[in-house]
Amino acid sequence: MKTLELDLGEKSYPIYIGQGLLDQEKLLTNHIAGKQVMIVTNTTVAPLYLEQVKSLLGSLNVAQVVLPDGEQYKTLDTVNLIFDALLENRFDRSCTLIALGGGVVGDMTGFAAASYQRGVSFIQIPTTLLSQVDSSVGGKTGVNHPLGKNMIGAFHQPKCVLIDVDTLDTLDDRQYAAGMAEVIKYGLLGNADFLTFLQDNIQNLMRRNKDLIIQSVYQSCTDKANIVAQDELESGKRALLNLGHTFGHAIENTLGYGVFLHGEAISVGMLMAAKLSQLAGDLSHQDVDQVQDLLEKSNLPISVDGKISASEFLSAMSVDKKVIDGNIRLILMKKLGEAYLSDYYQKEQLDQVIGDFC
Amino acid sequence: MKTLELDLGEKSYPIYIGQGLLDQEKLLTNHIAGKQVMIVTNTTVAPLYLEQVKSLLGSLNVAQVVLPDGEQYKTLDTVNLIFDALLENRFDRSCTLIALGGGVVGDMTGFAAASYQRGVSFIQIPTTLLSQVDSSVGGKTGVNHPLGKNMIGAFHQPKCVLIDVDTLDTLDDRQYAAGMAEVIKYGLLGNADFLTFLQDNIQNLMRRNKDLIIQSVYQSCTDKANIVAQDELESGKRALLNLGHTFGHAIENTLGYGVFLHGEAISVGMLMAAKLSQLAGDLSHQDVDQVQDLLEKSNLPISVDGKISASEFLSAMSVDKKVIDGNIRLILMKKLGEAYLSDYYQKEQLDQVIGDFC
Repeated sequence: MKTLELDLGEKSYPIYIGQGLLDQEKLLTNHIAGKQVMIVTNTTVAPLYLEQVKSLLGSLNVAQVVLPDGEQYKTLDTVNLIFDALLENRFDRSCTLIALGGGVVGDMTGFAAASYQRGVSFIQIPTTLLSQVDSSVGGKTGVNHPLGKNMIGAFHQPKCVLIDVDTLDTLDDRQYAAGMAEVIKYGLLGNADFLTFLQDNIQNLMRRNKDLIIQSVYQSCTDKANIVAQDELESGKRALLNLGHTFGHAIENTLGYGVFLHGEAISVGMLMAAKLSQLAGDLSHQDVDQVQDLLEKSNLPISVDGKISASEFLSAMSVDKKVIDGNIRLILMKKLGEAYLSDYYQKEQLDQVIGDFC
Repeated sequence: MKTLELDLGEKSYPIYIGQGLLDQEKLLTNHIAGKQVMIVTNTTVAPLYLEQVKSLLGSLNVAQVVLPDGEQYKTLDTVNLIFDALLENRFDRSCTLIALGGGVVGDMTGFAAASYQRGVSFIQIPTTLLSQVDSSVGGKTGVNHPLGKNMIGAFHQPKCVLIDVDTLDTLDDRQYAAGMAEVIKYGLLGNADFLTFLQDNIQNLMRRNKDLIIQSVYQSCTDKANIVAQDELESGKRALLNLGHTFGHAIENTLGYGVFLHGEAISVGMLMAAKLSQLAGDLSHQDVDQVQDLLEKSNLPISVDGKISASEFLSAMSVDKKVIDGNIRLILMKKLGEAYLSDYYQKEQLDQVIGDFC
């Protein structure tokens, strides 16, 4: 097992990464202060891992809430199901919520924990590659609104993140590939060595070699933890983690959830960011080809395939959280492995990229 | 005008108290950083003060959302109306929300500001006595759940609190009296001198003498600001501000909102706390009579008048946020002007008090 510490002063917490972690009782119970535990999971994950997690919590007062599965349920109404369960069980401020599932479960559980009685503890047990390398770490929580993704939420840090890569055994290939998009993101935005590692090992990673997965998850979480420790509330550097996301959110918002998985939309978005970086004179044609090649080897999409018009795309981009006083801020790349926040790209070049991909 | 500073480090903010403050543009605009301003108010307050506040915001991009009026609308669904308005107007992270109204508007606007895009700025302009002396100061925000009051929320501090006591001219007598309950609370929980001042001046306060009102609002906010500065997140001393509230919430939850106003329920709750403090041997019979006399002179109720059974009352109390691991914590009084948090009262004495008041 590898352990990372996300350094946030009093809010610091460990991230455990390895195999067989869901068999280790103390790893989990050491981070539970009170007696009341609510496990939040979904209809897909519950049959696979709920009993296993419950078996670790022997003497505690454990309840559960099983949510419908899917990004389309990442809403205030679904979070309200968690509040219902907490209140029906008369859980108080000393309770702990456990998010058992992918990013959607983690984001909603975290927001419920941030808001229940103005804040209770929670623990992340991410069971998808995407949530293991990205959403479970860093304390961003929230839900979608019909007019925009992740528009309602809170910064609320978990007490620990417990990443058992064995849970990936039950993840389907499409979801696995979608997670790989966020892994690749860390290479592109700030770690050229890791990008090379991924290029060298992508075939074996896609064959789910466990050692390579652990290395990749560990490196992704390390890079993310370093950035979050410097900028918890995203007033600066943390925005780099949104590489591809303003484009990607526009795809998800326009097509509705489920047509593109989040990681698939981010895949297209990262390639669009690379292309705009090329037009801005920073990346070479070869660089963009390298990005495209890595995404294709990860079985990820590289265009929206005619499903969205350019004008729809641009309109959807303008409600992103990265918009400040009406200006769309984008994460672009100076070179592969070095991203930056740009307000100064040329509007015509953005239009050209959107035209090329739509 | 009197100005108080609530000292919370980087989150510190001023509280302005006086007459004619809604005519002073800079007082408000000095605390607005971006260009987008959403005024949140309700159907009662909008016709009275919305245009006046808008007229202070000349060059800014101002939008408004007018909510239904009443505690029964203090729900996630109503907060969602604020999110709808923010997104329909494409407001971004740099926007500021202004809560213009009573405690319900303030609590919901604050929670919307805490949650919109994971946190934006907001300003409190409380227009009821209750919100001026209590809910607008200190950053507690939130909504009710069918199973409990204020169960969903966040700690989120405003940029300033602007208290124009002239807005009390349009407040009806029942609402005014309900606000007086929270004023009296500050005397009872920690300020014997202020309690004497209130006893000496209650008739003229109920006749709405403006100088006495300003003094009372100022003293209440000073006492609250001092407590909040010591314990922002209610891990200790701040709990004293809940004097009468665990009883009061039980009344509101059992009868539904509107039968008792919040301040009316708190009035009964404070007298119940005084009675239990007497049974515990701390207050004298005369002390309790004094409390009752002051509440009666403020035209506040002193019992639930047969509307709730003792068993209903006790059951409703056990879902309060002050319950820790199943134990109901209560704020009691050592003497008039000195409250404390008690886990150790006798269960039979609590039953007796509930019996007496039901």
